[in-house]
Amino acid sequence: MAILTKNTQVSDEVLAVIAHMPTRSLPTLMNAEFSCALTDADFMRIAVLLAQKSYKEGGCPIGAVIIDNQTRQIVGKGHNTLVQEDHPYNHGETSAIRDAGRIDFGKTTLFTSLSPCDVCATLLYMRGFDKVVVGDVTNASGNEDLLRAKGVTVEILEDQQGIAQYAKFRAEKPAQDLEDWQGLNAVNNPRVL
Amino acid sequence: MAILTKNTQVSDEVLAVIAHMPTRSLPTLMNAEFSCALTDADFMRIAVLLAQKSYKEGGCPIGAVIIDNQTRQIVGKGHNTLVQEDHPYNHGETSAIRDAGRIDFGKTTLFTSLSPCDVCATLLYMRGFDKVVVGDVTNASGNEDLLRAKGVTVEILEDQQGIAQYAKFRAEKPAQDLEDWQGLNAVNNPRVL
Repeated sequence: MAILTKNTQVSDEVLAVIAHMPTRSLPTLMNAEFSCALTDADFMRIAVLLAQKSYKEGGCPIGAVIIDNQTRQIVGKGHNTLVQEDHPYNHGETSAIRDAGRIDFGKTTLFTSLSPCDVCATLLYMRGFDKVVVGDVTNASGNEDLLRAKGVTVEILEDQQGIAQYAKFRAEKPAQDLEDWQGLNAVNNPRVL
Repeated sequence: MAILTKNTQVSDEVLAVIAHMPTRSLPTLMNAEFSCALTDADFMRIAVLLAQKSYKEGGCPIGAVIIDNQTRQIVGKGHNTLVQEDHPYNHGETSAIRDAGRIDFGKTTLFTSLSPCDVCATLLYMRGFDKVVVGDVTNASGNEDLLRAKGVTVEILEDQQGIAQYAKFRAEKPAQDLEDWQGLNAVNNPRVL
């Protein structure tokens, strides 16, 4: 008996519980009837709430969710762990893909709270993702055309809460933001513009 | 008191112990005098022995070692864990970088037993690696020019033992090899050549 059913109102509080629950334990939380009714905007908000979890942990606020196209069940999710795991490249997308494990990503859609970096964009097309939905092309952008050229469907579905959250983080911790994109080498050797 | 000192003869048996020892425990195994005398070919052989460890575990035989350019101490190492960790993209290079943590890779050299894939090559230049040494351009190649164009020094130092080991794996497990490079989507939907 899951506690989220077709009569449950979707709210940020409910989506936050989904974000925090380990993926393989989600069936204890919600039944298929509830989760099938979640919209693309709901999945994007879950990605943004994963980003919020990371921000509260002192990390970079970027999250991602992967769903099965046919069942619309969540098969992977995660957030950036640069700080939390002392991890030089675990971004929102890589974290969600690691969580999903060895599945066929050609049957899935990935929702990311922020436009993917070069590494994540390359990983997304090399793993044959069917579709990527981007929640923020305001704070970053640029690899959407690369993904489309490689056969990945790309949709933009901006989430204003996520955009505001990332802008706040970038203003507060510019060095951490730069390290996350380009590594400590870039922080130690800033390029003259 | 480390057991490997300047009087120890370097052999595959000795290099295998270095490969298997957790990076942060290496000072218990060898003193600085011994490790400073290790050559580039020795570090490449350690990467090949990490690949061998992965092969024996049923995984893909690709390994990598990262050294500090100035001290020549090993600061990160690892091998592919597609099978072992149910991990869709943890290659030799990504594994070694994860092991090293948040360091400035601009002061390091990475030795990889096999030419890097698109994702790893992108990660290597985005993290500002100074130098990459490639141990096998016979079984795979193609991203050396991309790395050079992005300012990374690339050297080829082939290790025949590693080349033979990878060729054997590819002949034995072609589907696992393809999944490691392009994901299960490519295995399920083979392209007509």
